[in-house]
Amino acid sequence: MKVLDHGYVKLIETWGSDESVISAARMSTNKGFLGWGTEKEPGDEKLLKYLWKHQHFSPFEFGGMIVEIKAPILVFREIMRHRVFSFNEASARYTMLPNENYLPTLDRLLQVNEKSTNKQASGTGKVLTNENALQWLDSLSKLYNHAQQVYENGIELGVAKELARLPMPVARYSKLRASANLRNLLGFLKLRMAEDAQWETRQTANAISLLVKEAFPRTYQLFSESK
Amino acid sequence: MKVLDHGYVKLIETWGSDESVISAARMSTNKGFLGWGTEKEPGDEKLLKYLWKHQHFSPFEFGGMIVEIKAPILVFREIMRHRVFSFNEASARYTMLPNENYLPTLDRLLQVNEKSTNKQASGTGKVLTNENALQWLDSLSKLYNHAQQVYENGIELGVAKELARLPMPVARYSKLRASANLRNLLGFLKLRMAEDAQWETRQTANAISLLVKEAFPRTYQLFSESK
Amino acid sequence: MKVLDHGYVKLIETWGSDESVISAARMSTNKGFLGWGTEKEPGDEKLLKYLWKHQHFSPFEFGGMIVEIKAPILVFREIMRHRVFSFNEASARYTMLPNENYLPTLDRLLQVNEKSTNKQASGTGKVLTNENALQWLDSLSKLYNHAQQVYENGIELGVAKELARLPMPVARYSKLRASANLRNLLGFLKLRMAEDAQWETRQTANAISLLVKEAFPRTYQLFSESK
Amino acid sequence: MKVLDHGYVKLIETWGSDESVISAARMSTNKGFLGWGTEKEPGDEKLLKYLWKHQHFSPFEFGGMIVEIKAPILVFREIMRHRVFSFNEASARYTMLPNENYLPTLDRLLQVNEKSTNKQASGTGKVLTNENALQWLDSLSKLYNHAQQVYENGIELGVAKELARLPMPVARYSKLRASANLRNLLGFLKLRMAEDAQWETRQTANAISLLVKEAFPRTYQLFSESK
Repeated sequence: MKVLDHGYVKLIETWGSDESVISAARMSTNKGFLGWGTEKEPGDEKLLKYLWKHQHFSPFEFGGMIVEIKAPILVFREIMRHRVFSFNEASARYTMLPNENYLPTLDRLLQVNEKSTNKQASGTGKVLTNENALQWLDSLSKLYNHAQQVYENGIELGVAKELARLPMPVARYSKLRASANLRNLLGFLKLRMAEDAQWETRQTANAISLLVKEAFPRTYQLFSESK
Repeated sequence: MKVLDHGYVKLIETWGSDESVISAARMSTNKGFLGWGTEKEPGDEKLLKYLWKHQHFSPFEFGGMIVEIKAPILVFREIMRHRVFSFNEASARYTMLPNENYLPTLDRLLQVNEKSTNKQASGTGKVLTNENALQWLDSLSKLYNHAQQVYENGIELGVAKELARLPMPVARYSKLRASANLRNLLGFLKLRMAEDAQWETRQTANAISLLVKEAFPRTYQLFSESK
Repeated sequence: MKVLDHGYVKLIETWGSDESVISAARMSTNKGFLGWGTEKEPGDEKLLKYLWKHQHFSPFEFGGMIVEIKAPILVFREIMRHRVFSFNEASARYTMLPNENYLPTLDRLLQVNEKSTNKQASGTGKVLTNENALQWLDSLSKLYNHAQQVYENGIELGVAKELARLPMPVARYSKLRASANLRNLLGFLKLRMAEDAQWETRQTANAISLLVKEAFPRTYQLFSESK
Repeated sequence: MKVLDHGYVKLIETWGSDESVISAARMSTNKGFLGWGTEKEPGDEKLLKYLWKHQHFSPFEFGGMIVEIKAPILVFREIMRHRVFSFNEASARYTMLPNENYLPTLDRLLQVNEKSTNKQASGTGKVLTNENALQWLDSLSKLYNHAQQVYENGIELGVAKELARLPMPVARYSKLRASANLRNLLGFLKLRMAEDAQWETRQTANAISLLVKEAFPRTYQLFSESK
């Protein structure tokens, strides 16, 4: 699933299901258990809704997902902020990150002119013209090339990889594999699919949400309705 | 898998594998990924050992397990102490726990006389005779009946379930479903399979360890050697 | 601060303050920092409200509290359920717990007859009469004595402490010391001060809430209004 | 406490003490408690050692520390990796980060030629000459200026702050406030004071370790001996 200009979100594995959530919740009342993957029984729909509505979230820890994500460093910085994922990321100490940097589209840049834009995250109130935006994208692209040149030159001269990376912009793409349970995934999605989240992180969150919807359709439905 | 007189440990689901651990670790060096379930490639054995030996534990968060456990409350109290499991337990507020209580065997009671016994957890240094042990087991069994009688009588008289349970001994069996990743499972097993852990909790940990060994044989091998 | 018949909640130490929360939040905008313990500046009240209303909870992790609690085991079981406290509890493996057990008052028992009672946690719908309640309390008290007798007898005969405790009821008082940050404390209080929480645990939560109110008055005010 | 060319580590607050750790541990044996700040009693030294040696780490959660750190983004990326800190960081979405970037010293660059250097993190095996190192530092410095120019130009043209930051290098300084308990602090220090940790992160860890040593001298002593 493509995200931004060079990124992606890819499902590695899921565990559990909507039925696992229900099954875990039934432990409390000792009511016997659903077999995994069995058809839903009467009353289940109601139980799942009940759990969600009354914020009994612990049964939602009985499912989860491992995904692989390629995104700019600044997006990863926001994702890691949540401290709910297990993750392993490509390390520029040990490997040279390929020369891929996030270059926003013209449309993305011009969002700043929209009324609804998060004022804090926007500019000084000036209108960004098409021409200026294109010019800035061009200068950004050149800066990326310059940074890459300093990076590669460092490696060639014998600078340690862990230092040669210093010029890399936060726009540089990296990769990671992340694991989280359903409860934490939904907590993450709630914050990062929100309107005031950085647009780039939101694209990543949106892509993850499609995977969650596919694997846990009934839970995702409840989540969507309550957003 | 039977544990103690009325308990069990039952596998509900696993996710990931030894290969998932390796695959997650390879993110760091961006070396490409193993397909899931593929045969191990040359060098993998070495990588897994390297991760374990150098305590790079985060890749071991990319596998995990959900188990269902039936055990006495005092065992659950020790398990919950670890704060690494997601769990849902049968609640005596909402359901009457069946009349099952842990009654140790004579052999278990007589362990106290062994030299190697954890001194802190043992008695006053007196030798426990066979006769005294049998007599105490008999009095314990009678106490269990008495407690159950007060419990049932409370329910009959209209006492709320959440109060009627007050007489229940910590030997009472309860059930729960627990989920944890491989790293945390091994941390738990290390402490609770140890010689100085309470014997009853150790039986439960031993049963879980067999499930871990089955699902993650190569990692478990490394764990066993380092204990 | 007395709680229930033999319990208490006692403040050991707090760290941070409402001002620390604000100060931590100000890192985001790099606006300079409040000195600790300084008078509040204009605009602070608004910032704290903003954080709370928009669920920016991470700054609330910059204060916290250590408390010592004495309560029945069944209350501790609910508290530990939250997995947000660091705690150390008295261990009946190493020490004999004193003969103190929670005996509810007559009023507490009769709550079951109130209309508003949580139906799930209550009895069979029968009305609990004064006479029956008193009779049950009497039988409960006798059971406590019986359990203690088996416990002490075990110790005398040479049964290991870790087994001699088997007859102890979940009503037995224990002690622990617990530490949590403000964000997690409030999460705990929200669930355990709620109407449908077990009354005994609610008394403990209420006592803790008074300590939180004292140490973090402005945050507690916002919490109270949003409950 | 100065760290690297523009960074620092500053103590904001500590809570607890070596004595709090001992006091929390004593809960287990119900042996009564030390008053906070009292002189150590005979036997305490032994208990602290016992806890550390036998890896009974939970009492070490009863102390902790809040620090403010200014460091390059790539150092923060490694610190956040640990998921054990509560933190709030300056956000380039809301504020312009000042034009401060980490420029290593010549000596630091030449470390790559030392035999003991972590091979994975180093270059291609070439010897880095003084001249080449100086030349690279010069080109790095020019790249920083170029990146800053694109950044500032974006802001002037009306590009949103959250996008104008794209050219910022991972060498850019940021600030954060972080909170962790003693157990987690020591876990962090163990990994990041190690020889194979990135040198820049190690400088930050070393500075934090001095604060830990000051606030928890007896625990820190045990930690140092076991490294």
